[in-house]
Amino acid sequence: MKLRELADRLACRLEGDGEIEIARVAGIEDAGPGDLTFVANTKYLAALATTRASAVLLRDEAPPTVLLRDEVPPAPLAVLRTPDPYLAFARAVGVFAPRWQPEPGVHAMSAIARDARIGEGVSIAAFVSVGEGAVVGDRTIVFPNVTIGPGARIGADCVVHSNVSIRERVIIGDRVVLQNGVVIGGDGYGFVRRSDGTHEKIPQVATVVIEDDVELGANTTVDRPAVGETRIKAGAKIDNLVQIAHGVVIGRNALMAAQVGIAGSTEIGDDVMFGGQVGVGGHLAIGRGVVAVGQSGITNSVDAGAMVAGYPAIDAREWRKASVLFRRLPELKRRVEELEARLAELARHSAPVARDGGKQSQ
Amino acid sequence: MKLRELADRLACRLEGDGEIEIARVAGIEDAGPGDLTFVANTKYLAALATTRASAVLLRDEAPPTVLLRDEVPPAPLAVLRTPDPYLAFARAVGVFAPRWQPEPGVHAMSAIARDARIGEGVSIAAFVSVGEGAVVGDRTIVFPNVTIGPGARIGADCVVHSNVSIRERVIIGDRVVLQNGVVIGGDGYGFVRRSDGTHEKIPQVATVVIEDDVELGANTTVDRPAVGETRIKAGAKIDNLVQIAHGVVIGRNALMAAQVGIAGSTEIGDDVMFGGQVGVGGHLAIGRGVVAVGQSGITNSVDAGAMVAGYPAIDAREWRKASVLFRRLPELKRRVEELEARLAELARHSAPVARDGGKQSQ
Amino acid sequence: MKLRELADRLACRLEGDGEIEIARVAGIEDAGPGDLTFVANTKYLAALATTRASAVLLRDEAPPTVLLRDEVPPAPLAVLRTPDPYLAFARAVGVFAPRWQPEPGVHAMSAIARDARIGEGVSIAAFVSVGEGAVVGDRTIVFPNVTIGPGARIGADCVVHSNVSIRERVIIGDRVVLQNGVVIGGDGYGFVRRSDGTHEKIPQVATVVIEDDVELGANTTVDRPAVGETRIKAGAKIDNLVQIAHGVVIGRNALMAAQVGIAGSTEIGDDVMFGGQVGVGGHLAIGRGVVAVGQSGITNSVDAGAMVAGYPAIDAREWRKASVLFRRLPELKRRVEELEARLAELARHSAPVARDGGKQSQ
Repeated sequence: MKLRELADRLACRLEGDGEIEIARVAGIEDAGPGDLTFVANTKYLAALATTRASAVLLRDEAPPTVLLRDEVPPAPLAVLRTPDPYLAFARAVGVFAPRWQPEPGVHAMSAIARDARIGEGVSIAAFVSVGEGAVVGDRTIVFPNVTIGPGARIGADCVVHSNVSIRERVIIGDRVVLQNGVVIGGDGYGFVRRSDGTHEKIPQVATVVIEDDVELGANTTVDRPAVGETRIKAGAKIDNLVQIAHGVVIGRNALMAAQVGIAGSTEIGDDVMFGGQVGVGGHLAIGRGVVAVGQSGITNSVDAGAMVAGYPAIDAREWRKASVLFRRLPELKRRVEELEARLAELARHSAPVARDGGKQSQ
Repeated sequence: MKLRELADRLACRLEGDGEIEIARVAGIEDAGPGDLTFVANTKYLAALATTRASAVLLRDEAPPTVLLRDEVPPAPLAVLRTPDPYLAFARAVGVFAPRWQPEPGVHAMSAIARDARIGEGVSIAAFVSVGEGAVVGDRTIVFPNVTIGPGARIGADCVVHSNVSIRERVIIGDRVVLQNGVVIGGDGYGFVRRSDGTHEKIPQVATVVIEDDVELGANTTVDRPAVGETRIKAGAKIDNLVQIAHGVVIGRNALMAAQVGIAGSTEIGDDVMFGGQVGVGGHLAIGRGVVAVGQSGITNSVDAGAMVAGYPAIDAREWRKASVLFRRLPELKRRVEELEARLAELARHSAPVARDGGKQSQ
Repeated sequence: MKLRELADRLACRLEGDGEIEIARVAGIEDAGPGDLTFVANTKYLAALATTRASAVLLRDEAPPTVLLRDEVPPAPLAVLRTPDPYLAFARAVGVFAPRWQPEPGVHAMSAIARDARIGEGVSIAAFVSVGEGAVVGDRTIVFPNVTIGPGARIGADCVVHSNVSIRERVIIGDRVVLQNGVVIGGDGYGFVRRSDGTHEKIPQVATVVIEDDVELGANTTVDRPAVGETRIKAGAKIDNLVQIAHGVVIGRNALMAAQVGIAGSTEIGDDVMFGGQVGVGGHLAIGRGVVAVGQSGITNSVDAGAMVAGYPAIDAREWRKASVLFRRLPELKRRVEELEARLAELARHSAPVARDGGKQSQ
């Protein structure tokens, strides 16, 4: 594709030769001739001096690339100006992406209940099971080996990758993407201890609601509760191997990296960002926009806007300061020992004086 | 259902109007008219003042609800008295649960080996594979896309949710529940380093035994060992995304929350309770009834009855005290610096005196 | 099998009765008559005094077993001498392993695209889906309910266990073992925040390369990136429930225990060893041979050969020293308080003297 056409499609302002052929999008270090790359973070501007890319997406206010390139004469590095190079990059990836997707239609080797409702333009692959009364919305794509339970409702334009389990009566909105192996509506972990030490299962029969535009990563699990509901609100994006326990609410546009675990009945506010392997205890309230550093263990409710780290999680700046000192604990201990020794020494010498002094001043 | 009938079915003593119609079970804050709720923890008794539920499960010795409600006249909140409101709640959920379950029978699109033995009243869904010589016990339900390997034996009254993998020769007891995506009998992680730095696989050909009444959560994995066995004892309840390595023994009625990981050959005692994301090292012995706080990292064997926390895990009270001080490390360091400064100051002034004093006292 | 024959097959030197019948391989404590056991670590030599095994694999230089056994006369414990008893044990397990494997052939209830290429001697089980243009190499075994996406290429002699998802265009080498539930090529977690707070998906359309002799554990996930590639190099062995994010490179012969998570674009060197639940941040470089203790949280790049622990991860010895002091923080605080009290006391008494002394010296 000519760079000029790409500029049009990405709504960027072109600087340089619009006739360059662009065939691919690549990271700034891997890029070669024919590639479009991007610099979203000014600290990577220096890499423009050496990149072999043919064109670069740059913020409107970034300096002209000729100033950054020390070749004489500078190689022709065309620029596409945009207020948000990272967003333009995302879209450019889409422009060059292989445009593969399964044909609409229901595979002969699927098992669709007679009363299930399958929308227009739906693609259902081999070995997919759709239970009684389930609904699959228009244009939704269901890959092989997916099980959709009785009464489950899936919206329009969803993508359900292979080996996903959607359990009975789960409700899924529009444009939801479920990566492979996701489990939605598995029984919550709810048991009551009997007097003999065995555990009685609390039937987990309430449901799960996944709102519009949610994405769940591979092998992530979202449990159903006994009563009430588990809900993931619109636009939340959740990575692989994440555990969302029964009765949890995840706020709109929340981001959670891989292997996060949220215990039962906790409410997570809108716009939170959790790093990988964060754990959150049960029955807590995590306010809007809270940021939790990877591996944090959140044991108490957190106010909106806070940034937390550590285990138990505390204010991130406080945690960082304390962490730096953690590794210096042996030094701190030595200093305390030295103080003790010097004080003992001092006491040995000065104490008699002090006592004499006391007498002198009487 | 009339409250009177519900009281009978739950073996509770009725206080109030037995003619009330109950249609649902709900948490105390979500409950409305027609709902039964419960208070198992006295700290939630206050919520009775405002709940809109029609009836509540209460401990025998809890005060009459009229004393707790400030409406004039108090709304009619009937009470079901029971020694264990949480257990009665669990059973009440069951009373109102949708009574859906698959019909017995073997789906035409399943692949059952000729010599597999399928019990009475078994339900085998579409796209289920049962290997040579495998056994599925009476009334067990197998959902779609489950693979049962050759020689595996599954007991009676089990529920195997979709996309579960049960590998060759695995042995599963009665009334076992496997949530979706569980893997039992995957190869243990056993390799020997060769002199050239590559790793030779130790064939993992021994088996896994899951005893009666065990439940495993979604996408949990239980590995088989090279020799000996991996065993999960009767009544253990394990949450989602948990890793049980090869050769591990999990005790009776053990509870493990999501994302726990147990390394190879460790023995976990009966009645333990592990919070989420706990990790336990290999070749350890964790005693009966040990409690581990979420995210603990257990690196040594633990005596029966201990409660541990932290990483490396130590006595939980000790850990809590140390944790409080962790965040105060900057303050502690300041205090040490101040001591050093004051001592230096003191030494500067008093040391000569001390020496003078020494002379004086000669 | 006669011990003499086993000695031949394992290339060991026989000490004792070669006519003993060996039927099984077992751990030293579980072993009984007819079993072969092993001692690879000298600390288990003592167990030879009481083992009921019939024969033992021992290092060449280990003492004769008669010296270690206090029975009079000592039970006949034959010895197989070898430079590497653990490796010989691994191979002995293979000798006695059930030699079960599926027959070659393509199951009638599979869905193989017309233009997919299936090699010689391949076994494809029921409910396996192979997409357009996909390739499955010679003698590879594909268990039930596996989905192989369009354009994916799998090498020769691989084993793909049930419920694995191999996404479109993923490339897999020879002799790769994928345990059940593995997901390769799921979309990387890549989103751009729009100005309204919602997130735009960056199409994750580049690919994943799994080189020869890699093994991935049950329910492990390996994501594909938007550009570039995710690569797991030859001989890496990765345990269950591990997350490999988009754009990550894992070095040759790397070992990663269960539940490890590697964030996006990080490069992991050859021969690293990570304990369970280790987390590694994004865009880092972890050098060759780095060892990370279980649950470490690596937030910075690590030099080759380092051994790290803790969160944030630091040098493991340093961490161990600091950890010991962590639990003694209450004591350290008490000592600081005592110092403060004693210094205050001392100051109260000596300060006037110091001042007097100052005057005296004027």
